[in-house]
Amino acid sequence: MKSNEDAVKKIAENSVIDFSGGFACPIPKSEYANILLAHGSGGKLTHQLIEKMFLPQFKNELLAPLHDGAIFTLGGNRFAFSTDSYVVNPIFFPGGDIGELAVNGTVNDLSMCGARPLYLSTGFIIEEGLPIDDLWKIVLSMQEAAKRAEVLLVTGDTKVVDRGKGDKIFINTSGIGIVGDGVDISPKNIRAGDKIIVNGNIALHGIAIMSVREGLEFETTIESDTAPLNAMVQEMFEATRNVHVLRDPTRGGVATTLNEIAEQANLGIVLAEECIPVTDEVRAACEILGLDPLYIANEGKLLAFVSPEDSETLLTAMRRHPLGKDSVVIGEVVEKHPGTVVMKSRIGGTRVVDMLTGEQLPRIC
Amino acid sequence: MKSNEDAVKKIAENSVIDFSGGFACPIPKSEYANILLAHGSGGKLTHQLIEKMFLPQFKNELLAPLHDGAIFTLGGNRFAFSTDSYVVNPIFFPGGDIGELAVNGTVNDLSMCGARPLYLSTGFIIEEGLPIDDLWKIVLSMQEAAKRAEVLLVTGDTKVVDRGKGDKIFINTSGIGIVGDGVDISPKNIRAGDKIIVNGNIALHGIAIMSVREGLEFETTIESDTAPLNAMVQEMFEATRNVHVLRDPTRGGVATTLNEIAEQANLGIVLAEECIPVTDEVRAACEILGLDPLYIANEGKLLAFVSPEDSETLLTAMRRHPLGKDSVVIGEVVEKHPGTVVMKSRIGGTRVVDMLTGEQLPRIC
Repeated sequence: MKSNEDAVKKIAENSVIDFSGGFACPIPKSEYANILLAHGSGGKLTHQLIEKMFLPQFKNELLAPLHDGAIFTLGGNRFAFSTDSYVVNPIFFPGGDIGELAVNGTVNDLSMCGARPLYLSTGFIIEEGLPIDDLWKIVLSMQEAAKRAEVLLVTGDTKVVDRGKGDKIFINTSGIGIVGDGVDISPKNIRAGDKIIVNGNIALHGIAIMSVREGLEFETTIESDTAPLNAMVQEMFEATRNVHVLRDPTRGGVATTLNEIAEQANLGIVLAEECIPVTDEVRAACEILGLDPLYIANEGKLLAFVSPEDSETLLTAMRRHPLGKDSVVIGEVVEKHPGTVVMKSRIGGTRVVDMLTGEQLPRIC
Repeated sequence: MKSNEDAVKKIAENSVIDFSGGFACPIPKSEYANILLAHGSGGKLTHQLIEKMFLPQFKNELLAPLHDGAIFTLGGNRFAFSTDSYVVNPIFFPGGDIGELAVNGTVNDLSMCGARPLYLSTGFIIEEGLPIDDLWKIVLSMQEAAKRAEVLLVTGDTKVVDRGKGDKIFINTSGIGIVGDGVDISPKNIRAGDKIIVNGNIALHGIAIMSVREGLEFETTIESDTAPLNAMVQEMFEATRNVHVLRDPTRGGVATTLNEIAEQANLGIVLAEECIPVTDEVRAACEILGLDPLYIANEGKLLAFVSPEDSETLLTAMRRHPLGKDSVVIGEVVEKHPGTVVMKSRIGGTRVVDMLTGEQLPRIC
């Protein structure tokens, strides 16, 4: 699983840009000339692609680097626009399926922009031979998820690729939402002292998928936490407009997401290990699989950065919502060590929590 | 290439819906239980999926059946929202590549809704092992295409799938556009007597792809017509608001698109064979490959339905634009044979031009 990690590390470190020839590819090819699974991990190599290849080419004032969507103003309204492709394997897993994941995922990306999600598109890429019944289950599940999240699936596209050129089904959902008055979600708003809240147990989605793949059995089945966070987010905004950043820690997990934010805000983050909620089953599974829950994908969790004076108000509002009943403060923002996330362990030690390197869990979403 | 056509025909004909069990899959499974390539052809089986599976589940006032996008009103503005995944094989072809195609395709889908395209998202699904240089070429090409079409790529997503579970790269682009005042594109506006205009030679994209795949060589290389039609469409609207329908005949070609429109408008369409512009090279390639240009995909063409009194004005406006210099009237709308397209041949005969059945050209876009 970590077979290409060394190669990956070298590439990530060897990040000198070669601009010779004007339009030369800016990714250094001395180590590796092809796309690795790790380029899709959400970790360092994904960032390298985005920062060195996509952003410089596609640069414009709206393309928000490493954010979950773009925000633009038209006719006096602020809109959020987001896209995500889902390639999870297996397509049916404990607690959900690729269809539900695709709807919830884009609903959440829009919510993390501070938007109320309204309309979604769905693009299917189906492998020849997919049982029609499977497609039907996925369609029903998408419709159910759209109903639950109160969004409409308004436009779509279906492509079929030959057997062996895809994997059952990939789904892209893109979405449009409207940003409420006074809502301003941006790392630039973060201040030292801000509290970091998570709305419940982490690492459920990734471990649910890995348990199926590895054939692990526990007393109770670990289920994905896939869920639409938009309703809870609206209640959060009703409680306070001092939410500075919202981000859902999907690929790369809590650790990678917090590293992104620390870097963008140019501030440090300190986590309290004992406060990070992880169920016993997930902890056990992580030990068996040799994984750290901080790097495991979530699909129904968010990290909220809020002014210290509003954190109690926000926690109370979150805990009133079923998806936020286990909300807790897991850390805070500090002036020290800008761009770096550190964790205070149960026994008082401190360690740096880096961004994900390599690919821990391919095709987790 | 037409190996599964008989199976397909049977399925398309056997369209009794089984609603037993309430949520039973509505696609009859007596003949075939799995997805065929033809389900992605844009022809009859694609329609069956959309009409029997997607529309009934996802139904809402915005989900425009068989249209190129959804239109919704927010804050007094009308927006168009569209999505398309591109799985073309090969990814580099004469006249373009998958990146350019992905940008132009969604620009065109928005234009066909009567909208001015503004913002695009890009979702990459990359197969492990894709040369980074190929990705770089595609990124440059997308940026170039976006610049040409004057749209911004504002948000994106990258996923990587394991080797053998994808095919080099698939790209989804979704887009948002704004619909101009007084623009109303809908089959319900079509009247008997309306002229049907195409903006130039048909079947270029599909034949460019097929020529590469089949290793055909001609005196000159047949190039894809991939191009952004939005600027020409804006000039068309400036000339007249009496454009009733715009549609780009991509998968399934002119024949399939016109059948869709005839069905939706509940009117007949008569085409004049001698007026349909096809280059000699494309005609020769079609003969070699046993294909009918009417069913071949275009990526820089549109069909415009316009009131007869405005057709000259519209033609003049179109011909002023480089992408419309070869615009011609190819047919008109009639009261007779509603829902059916017929073609008057050069020698005076008449034949029915049906929708595409089966899959003529898999993975053409």
